[in-house]
Amino acid sequence: MRFTSEQRLDDGVREREFSLGEIPGTLWTPRTAAPVPLILMAHNNGLPKNADRLVARARLSAAAGYAVASIDTPGCGDRPRSPDEERARADFRQAMQAGGPADEVFESFIGPLVEKAVPEWRATLDALVELPEIGGPVGYSGWAAVGIGLAAVEPRIAAAGFFAGGYVPRAQREAARKVTVPLLLLLQWDDEGNPRQLALDLFDAFGSTEKTLHANLGGHLGTPWFEREDGDRFFGRHLR
Amino acid sequence: MRFTSEQRLDDGVREREFSLGEIPGTLWTPRTAAPVPLILMAHNNGLPKNADRLVARARLSAAAGYAVASIDTPGCGDRPRSPDEERARADFRQAMQAGGPADEVFESFIGPLVEKAVPEWRATLDALVELPEIGGPVGYSGWAAVGIGLAAVEPRIAAAGFFAGGYVPRAQREAARKVTVPLLLLLQWDDEGNPRQLALDLFDAFGSTEKTLHANLGGHLGTPWFEREDGDRFFGRHLR
Repeated sequence: MRFTSEQRLDDGVREREFSLGEIPGTLWTPRTAAPVPLILMAHNNGLPKNADRLVARARLSAAAGYAVASIDTPGCGDRPRSPDEERARADFRQAMQAGGPADEVFESFIGPLVEKAVPEWRATLDALVELPEIGGPVGYSGWAAVGIGLAAVEPRIAAAGFFAGGYVPRAQREAARKVTVPLLLLLQWDDEGNPRQLALDLFDAFGSTEKTLHANLGGHLGTPWFEREDGDRFFGRHLR
Repeated sequence: MRFTSEQRLDDGVREREFSLGEIPGTLWTPRTAAPVPLILMAHNNGLPKNADRLVARARLSAAAGYAVASIDTPGCGDRPRSPDEERARADFRQAMQAGGPADEVFESFIGPLVEKAVPEWRATLDALVELPEIGGPVGYSGWAAVGIGLAAVEPRIAAAGFFAGGYVPRAQREAARKVTVPLLLLLQWDDEGNPRQLALDLFDAFGSTEKTLHANLGGHLGTPWFEREDGDRFFGRHLR
């Protein structure tokens, strides 16, 4: 893991870009010198790690005392795309313009993104926990499909907050019962692109004995501001 | 309103019993001298106002800076029961022993309790807001059916937290769209006595533009402790 740039934000948070082989990432750490718990933060459906909303959430959680990491996984953000990835993306765009894609289009676009993302997140986790500024249990926040894939195989994930606003491929829907850590599922009640019943079924399927659903009125982008604080309180209960 | 007894708890909270005509009530107020927002706290399905769980919640919310009031409404707690009320209660018990009552039994037991409770809560509210130690907006917490009936007709209710663990009579299910204040609906995902789908339909029906559902794994009595704090934070956003 090689740090390629660093800036110090007004509230003392350190924001560092890093490379791990082909994986570009960002790490936010709080002012404190003591080791802090880590949150892996992933945007839905492969949005870039420098998207405004992710960066804003990461900075606030770092200011609240967590180390927060985000990466661009294959086919996402600034990563170069293979011809297959370009084709899947083009098919997906075309289906969106034609009034919303069918499940098969989702499967062939999102499925491979998720399959490639999980091992890269594990490699990133391996590298991050070696850093002296990171210690204690690890949380995951964001993209549900990747988080399910990760939490189902990765014993170091101690708590997970998922956003139910993205397509969850069949493989991860089936893996949901293998997720047994405390979890918080965040649902926008009127999410245009995500059938409510699928999210409720997913919540039901998780194997966790401690799981909480927060549903709020509104569309995909309408999550209320207080849910970020609720997320920090959830992680505070399980990572501190 | 006549205060009949008073005790001061360890954390400075004042706990006073009162009578308002035939209505017996309890008022908890925090140590502070400044007027504080009021929360009307009602137990599901007419459990008594001195039930341990309600008293514990009320004391904690008072310690957190709210005035909290609870009353025994007709047919509930220590109130004398009419022959009709005794009969409805006996029918209900019998149906419970026979494996869970049908909707009609619920309607004839719970329906009248709710209809009689709403005007008594309004009369109590009239009296409480005259007290110098109470000021600012009013919240409602607890028994969903009574809260819907109250919030649908009572403009002084500014925010409502409902527990979706009790039967909601048809009249209140129909009135749900008239409830337009910010609300938090608390659901136990595996509540033995309360079909999950009814609670989800109720959440969908509320007229509020700001509404949040918190669902937790577990049965009727399994609400996790952190939901009480979440409730205080919800009221903090709307009553402060």
